[in-house]
Amino acid sequence: MKILGIDPGMAIVGYSLLDFDGKDYSLSASGSIQTKKGSRESARLLEIFQDMTTIVETYKPDVAAIEKLFFVHNQTTVMPVAHARGVILTVLEQFNIPIYEYTPMEVKKNLTGYGRADKKEVEQMVKLTLGTEKLPKLDDTVDSIAIAICCSRSV
Amino acid sequence: MKILGIDPGMAIVGYSLLDFDGKDYSLSASGSIQTKKGSRESARLLEIFQDMTTIVETYKPDVAAIEKLFFVHNQTTVMPVAHARGVILTVLEQFNIPIYEYTPMEVKKNLTGYGRADKKEVEQMVKLTLGTEKLPKLDDTVDSIAIAICCSRSV
Repeated sequence: MKILGIDPGMAIVGYSLLDFDGKDYSLSASGSIQTKKGSRESARLLEIFQDMTTIVETYKPDVAAIEKLFFVHNQTTVMPVAHARGVILTVLEQFNIPIYEYTPMEVKKNLTGYGRADKKEVEQMVKLTLGTEKLPKLDDTVDSIAIAICCSRSV
Repeated sequence: MKILGIDPGMAIVGYSLLDFDGKDYSLSASGSIQTKKGSRESARLLEIFQDMTTIVETYKPDVAAIEKLFFVHNQTTVMPVAHARGVILTVLEQFNIPIYEYTPMEVKKNLTGYGRADKKEVEQMVKLTLGTEKLPKLDDTVDSIAIAICCSRSV
């Protein structure tokens, strides 16, 4: 099963392609879509739309796992992420890819057993799962791997 | 100038095409995109994406005016609207249509002179502006006309 993990955002969308054969994991691709700072929101959304389309066309995932937004106090921050998320969901639906959604807390609990685990603990579990000491530099990309791992265990 | 007014939403997107020659207004089209209740969110977003694309291709607006979301207390309600809004912004950007954004309060103030005007007062001003007694049935469509009128006066 090829799982496309996605950590949505307006400035950075982290993504990863995780192959899971029911026992072993391998990471066949990982990276990020980074939109131009200072350009208008609609232009950044179109960039996300186009790049996400290319990613799906290139890697042909079987399923996608994306972070779910939940209630936060700072709505100014969450609004652009919700815009980006709507665009990503549209691309996935266009390619008929089943979508699974997880809150950050669900991902943490799934990986570490504890919903309030810190970043280091989650990273450690990602390394263990993939059998590697080397992770992508961007947190957003690492988060997308964690989301894909969470999906592999709950689908 | 052909202005596409848009009142974004997940269940209903109100839209209207307002022609403005600098003096007189005429409404050349108005309606709504209504997505299937109970179907999954990504499917509804794709419906909005496709229908909005058809609307823009059909009417070729010069500019678009869309309601801006602002801080509300009930974030559960606002999240799907933000998803839909992201999709609509992407479509407009794809067709290089300049986008103007207004909060509900800005629209009310522009039309009635009072930012907390009620629905009836706004409707009355829309009727006066268009020189008609008959408005579309759906509030979402009427709101999209109000947004387009607001845009005609501020661009």
